[in-house]
Amino acid sequence: MDAHTFRDWLARDPGPVLVPVGALEQHGPHLPMGTDAFLSTAIAGSVARRTGGLVAQPFTYGYKSQQKSGGGDHLPGTTSLDAAALIHLTRSVTVSLFRQGVRRIVFVNGHFENYQFLYEGIDLALDGLGIRSGDDRSVLLLSYWDYVSDDTLRKVYPDGFPGWAIEHGGVLETSLMLHLRPSLVGLDRAVDHPPADLPRFDRLPVVPERTPESGCLSAPAGSDAVKGRLLFDQVVEDLSTDIRVEFGLETSNHTEKA
Amino acid sequence: MDAHTFRDWLARDPGPVLVPVGALEQHGPHLPMGTDAFLSTAIAGSVARRTGGLVAQPFTYGYKSQQKSGGGDHLPGTTSLDAAALIHLTRSVTVSLFRQGVRRIVFVNGHFENYQFLYEGIDLALDGLGIRSGDDRSVLLLSYWDYVSDDTLRKVYPDGFPGWAIEHGGVLETSLMLHLRPSLVGLDRAVDHPPADLPRFDRLPVVPERTPESGCLSAPAGSDAVKGRLLFDQVVEDLSTDIRVEFGLETSNHTEKA
Amino acid sequence: MDAHTFRDWLARDPGPVLVPVGALEQHGPHLPMGTDAFLSTAIAGSVARRTGGLVAQPFTYGYKSQQKSGGGDHLPGTTSLDAAALIHLTRSVTVSLFRQGVRRIVFVNGHFENYQFLYEGIDLALDGLGIRSGDDRSVLLLSYWDYVSDDTLRKVYPDGFPGWAIEHGGVLETSLMLHLRPSLVGLDRAVDHPPADLPRFDRLPVVPERTPESGCLSAPAGSDAVKGRLLFDQVVEDLSTDIRVEFGLETSNHTEKA
Amino acid sequence: MDAHTFRDWLARDPGPVLVPVGALEQHGPHLPMGTDAFLSTAIAGSVARRTGGLVAQPFTYGYKSQQKSGGGDHLPGTTSLDAAALIHLTRSVTVSLFRQGVRRIVFVNGHFENYQFLYEGIDLALDGLGIRSGDDRSVLLLSYWDYVSDDTLRKVYPDGFPGWAIEHGGVLETSLMLHLRPSLVGLDRAVDHPPADLPRFDRLPVVPERTPESGCLSAPAGSDAVKGRLLFDQVVEDLSTDIRVEFGLETSNHTEKA
Amino acid sequence: MDAHTFRDWLARDPGPVLVPVGALEQHGPHLPMGTDAFLSTAIAGSVARRTGGLVAQPFTYGYKSQQKSGGGDHLPGTTSLDAAALIHLTRSVTVSLFRQGVRRIVFVNGHFENYQFLYEGIDLALDGLGIRSGDDRSVLLLSYWDYVSDDTLRKVYPDGFPGWAIEHGGVLETSLMLHLRPSLVGLDRAVDHPPADLPRFDRLPVVPERTPESGCLSAPAGSDAVKGRLLFDQVVEDLSTDIRVEFGLETSNHTEKA
Amino acid sequence: MDAHTFRDWLARDPGPVLVPVGALEQHGPHLPMGTDAFLSTAIAGSVARRTGGLVAQPFTYGYKSQQKSGGGDHLPGTTSLDAAALIHLTRSVTVSLFRQGVRRIVFVNGHFENYQFLYEGIDLALDGLGIRSGDDRSVLLLSYWDYVSDDTLRKVYPDGFPGWAIEHGGVLETSLMLHLRPSLVGLDRAVDHPPADLPRFDRLPVVPERTPESGCLSAPAGSDAVKGRLLFDQVVEDLSTDIRVEFGLETSNHTEKA
Repeated sequence: MDAHTFRDWLARDPGPVLVPVGALEQHGPHLPMGTDAFLSTAIAGSVARRTGGLVAQPFTYGYKSQQKSGGGDHLPGTTSLDAAALIHLTRSVTVSLFRQGVRRIVFVNGHFENYQFLYEGIDLALDGLGIRSGDDRSVLLLSYWDYVSDDTLRKVYPDGFPGWAIEHGGVLETSLMLHLRPSLVGLDRAVDHPPADLPRFDRLPVVPERTPESGCLSAPAGSDAVKGRLLFDQVVEDLSTDIRVEFGLETSNHTEKA
Repeated sequence: MDAHTFRDWLARDPGPVLVPVGALEQHGPHLPMGTDAFLSTAIAGSVARRTGGLVAQPFTYGYKSQQKSGGGDHLPGTTSLDAAALIHLTRSVTVSLFRQGVRRIVFVNGHFENYQFLYEGIDLALDGLGIRSGDDRSVLLLSYWDYVSDDTLRKVYPDGFPGWAIEHGGVLETSLMLHLRPSLVGLDRAVDHPPADLPRFDRLPVVPERTPESGCLSAPAGSDAVKGRLLFDQVVEDLSTDIRVEFGLETSNHTEKA
Repeated sequence: MDAHTFRDWLARDPGPVLVPVGALEQHGPHLPMGTDAFLSTAIAGSVARRTGGLVAQPFTYGYKSQQKSGGGDHLPGTTSLDAAALIHLTRSVTVSLFRQGVRRIVFVNGHFENYQFLYEGIDLALDGLGIRSGDDRSVLLLSYWDYVSDDTLRKVYPDGFPGWAIEHGGVLETSLMLHLRPSLVGLDRAVDHPPADLPRFDRLPVVPERTPESGCLSAPAGSDAVKGRLLFDQVVEDLSTDIRVEFGLETSNHTEKA
Repeated sequence: MDAHTFRDWLARDPGPVLVPVGALEQHGPHLPMGTDAFLSTAIAGSVARRTGGLVAQPFTYGYKSQQKSGGGDHLPGTTSLDAAALIHLTRSVTVSLFRQGVRRIVFVNGHFENYQFLYEGIDLALDGLGIRSGDDRSVLLLSYWDYVSDDTLRKVYPDGFPGWAIEHGGVLETSLMLHLRPSLVGLDRAVDHPPADLPRFDRLPVVPERTPESGCLSAPAGSDAVKGRLLFDQVVEDLSTDIRVEFGLETSNHTEKA
Repeated sequence: MDAHTFRDWLARDPGPVLVPVGALEQHGPHLPMGTDAFLSTAIAGSVARRTGGLVAQPFTYGYKSQQKSGGGDHLPGTTSLDAAALIHLTRSVTVSLFRQGVRRIVFVNGHFENYQFLYEGIDLALDGLGIRSGDDRSVLLLSYWDYVSDDTLRKVYPDGFPGWAIEHGGVLETSLMLHLRPSLVGLDRAVDHPPADLPRFDRLPVVPERTPESGCLSAPAGSDAVKGRLLFDQVVEDLSTDIRVEFGLETSNHTEKA
Repeated sequence: MDAHTFRDWLARDPGPVLVPVGALEQHGPHLPMGTDAFLSTAIAGSVARRTGGLVAQPFTYGYKSQQKSGGGDHLPGTTSLDAAALIHLTRSVTVSLFRQGVRRIVFVNGHFENYQFLYEGIDLALDGLGIRSGDDRSVLLLSYWDYVSDDTLRKVYPDGFPGWAIEHGGVLETSLMLHLRPSLVGLDRAVDHPPADLPRFDRLPVVPERTPESGCLSAPAGSDAVKGRLLFDQVVEDLSTDIRVEFGLETSNHTEKA
């Protein structure tokens, strides 16, 4: 989208600007390293269509992979930001969007470890701009998996849900990719292994042996495109509803893309 | 403890230095604002006695309270650090302890929002000191509630566990305080109300009305000292075991305190 | 590309990892806001194919647009990073790539204002890693237009080259886009106007009237896909040659993409 | 104190919030490492009772010990913050207290090296909040020994006062501890030696031999609880008077504690 | 100038405060290391006399010398600042001048590599002070060589101008020094060599051999005081005109110096 | 001095590089705003001649003036740095000097408020370079007035010394300027008033009325060039001796200047 069209869009007091946030992180032998940015961008795109929103450029790098949620930052294929980088990036983009006249921003997070640093970046931005409770400008921050309903969980994990922490390269991400872009998934390369049994603490420096060979914390066995579609549709639906309610937007089929 | 005694202790290649991490945060009308530091210090103290460790000065302030886990940073009684403060504090203390010859550090976190910033501070410290996998110096980081076992949960929450996120000023913290320091708990001031029904996103700036009047995300109804003792003993036991195994320490009844 | 394939690639002591750097910046009514990232990514991709290299995720946001080179940061459609964000981002990504075993990195810059901050980020990364002259690891940094030869310039600007500073939304960028992705160019929306006559100083805060209505510093009149192809092919050819010579790589038709 | 009681206190337009600032620093063989935080907290507590104030959580860590005032940061038993940590900590806590509606803050410093970094943290906080001369919100910053009167000095040091710089683990701190908490003082472990004869410059890196074996810069010989009480009472009295005058508070015997 | 005289000057709503910016950088065997600060201070002084302005203390250190514009930061005789130092320095001085009531500031840059970091420092200062377009306070930023006219260039470089990038220790700087302070120029020590043939990229870490032995990127052969005077007078004249026009100042012969 | 001469000087394993540190600060109606940098540079120059040292460019700006030692940062004529700027400046310059092969650095401070920030900058530099106790590279940091002997004090202040804190624009600085550069002193403009009676605390924001009209904390009455010479010669002599002893240098009359 060109800037003049964007200005026209802004002038209509429109839906939100959605900022997809990802990572460049190993996701085992069967998923691309850019999976997190790909999924959050796809979800943001679909939500934008339902809320009259626009998708901004994604954050293509994310915070350090931690062993308990992503296998660890020591694995080749994982290129990470430190806290200062991610906080400053988030703060800059938030400030810059508000300065242009945007009033509603939604950060759609797709990488577990990012969340608190996104929160800080947004909070610093609001503080610098003097935006306080009651202002008509605001930001929503969420990780898309928090929108997976219990009902969906039961369908996707018929044998019981192992917990989000070890859902790295597992059934959720693999199924979503099989639904959205099957050509990027190498299911034949996937390794089957029991879920990683990681301790309740983080140890630094990391003990590399604790991460399964594959780099995944749980195996993708049982993933399929049907589950992916179920996950995708339910998350997009519920997130779109929340955004419309939260921002007082009318239902919209308006499609716009950055 | 004086510094010369500390040097003697260090020279014996001892157990870990435990750093309790808390916050100064409203915890409703029935718990003191310093609850998080109090609890993490009590747990650290008991673990130190079982692992030949020492308790360092606690971190008395913590990261901003977030609405979904602590009611929000807008509530009087909550005095918070931003990310830069907590990261620098953690990095400085970690570097400084290792420089003195300490080889094992355990951060015992008692405030939900702190975790990622403690992680970053530790990681920056190790990076600056050139400590990599295989080094005989290392750090463990944990939040004490991650040590509550399923069995304990069932006993403490006979009607079902509502999730850690809204355990702020609720049964866990209140029971622990009733066990450890009942005189600081004003159970008669506690308010009973249903658990807060918070959205799946964070909205900034915060919508203050979403936090219950009391400031607690779940009510302390059903708390008692017996549950507190059960929680405390089980967490201390399991955490002590993990530390001894992780650091290759012998069982010890050695008592030392900073 | 998945992480295991990436590890195999790394193990062959391969060509460089190319990091395209762009911006999200207004480019007048006829070019998309993501033009800079699009062009640097396209050039990096073609260079990667000729040097056995890989393209990493692009930097999708860039430093503040300055009036003398990009129209100014006050224009809607321009979402920018401050220096701290861009420096930390660059430093983090550089450190993280070297830690994985990468030995040759090339930053391909597509946004004028970025250059010095990329330089600082790289320099801080090398300093932190202890990489000094003589090390077998190194980084190249360049802006792609510095590779346009005098001969090409004469062909693209038969009436004389107005200077890179005001080449914003002008003949260079428009022709390249017409060659690479004509569907994203709205030539019918382009405005014709004389080159902006900007002072020799920067004034802050900006005097908005000094930027032409269109947001471009020179008009795209005279752009066409043939010029775009000429520019693209010559830049890719010369840059590929420099990279091969600089890193001692053999000529390669090896194609790989991140 | 719980947060609801704190809100009631705040609503009465009360005395100051006092923030004690200490360090975790070696103080020779006879004093605990936490001496500085202990003393500033005790003084703040007594002043709070006389001014209708409240004592906040102390800062338990302080700036690097310098050889000329604390023996040096190389000594085991000294765990220190760098400037960034202490400045950010001070700024965060100051901002956060003012945001809650506090109008009067007093930092009671007990560690020589902290002062300038506390000053910067407070100044940054006021700047960020837009608090300028004439505002009804303000901060006092002081080191408690600056309140020791000439008369007291003559009584405590009958043979002449050696200067504050080398009062580390000496008569002042030891006497105060003997008055306030004699059980923490190991006078039998104290070493007698002449005052350290340190140069007029700081040399970095430190020449360790310049610090006396004991870690003290002057010996505690001559310390006793009577001197401690004299020091304590005079400092508390004069500081309380200053605070009441400065903030226009009435004399108060109001006792409140955090 | 004393502060009371400065206050009187300020009260007259006067011309600009000019801040000369230099570097401490090797300039070959024939020019002093402080050349950049010397030249920018001399130009600022002469401009101040023509615009009713005042010259503030110069910035005596500058950003890292880059190989393509200054020979490189590895050369002894070059003492440099990193980005954080120069940005913070610029921001602090800008904020502090505006706080005193100054309304017009001009940064006169004399070191190529500084420019973007000065820009960022100024922008952060304005942002912190809430100065936006339309405010009567503003800053001009410029590098003095951008004021050399085409006509002057033709006279100074009769054989063709080699480009500013390699004008380090060359004809421009040497001629200016011969005009302004010949006693500091050791023309007999100057080395004659062809202009450096540097690549179109920056390589880090630097390949030291690419910088000519002399440290200059082009030889000073052909420098003389007449050219220096021509350059100086023309730059001062044009810059003074720009400042008067930009700030709406009357022509002035008012002489004042800090 | 040119860089090639500097390299020859370095190769002789010479005396120290002295970095004078000042401020741009109001000093009443009778002294120039640049007094602090002027005095530290003069002292450094004279010491350099006696120790075979070199004087680097001075730091022309210093930390915020505090009311108790400099009248306060609110006074026009005072242009200050914040902590981050001064710390980064000091760190950068220290690192950069050591990287060139310098082995001995002396910071000669002339502005009270700077000291702790210089200390931090130096400490960070040494830490980054891995310079620890025992290294043959080191830094001395001092404020020149700490070298004034008791004997000199008695002669300069026959009626008793009022303390360094309020020596701002008073007898010390005025006498030194009368000795070194009488033409810059406007003794006829000096105001006579009793020493400022400042409280034992710092209050922020400042109460402007507490600073005497003149901006001086004590009056310059009684200043003369003879006292200035006495002060200058004694300080230079003692500081030179310390430097020679500390660095193991032979007595030298070697004169060199940057």
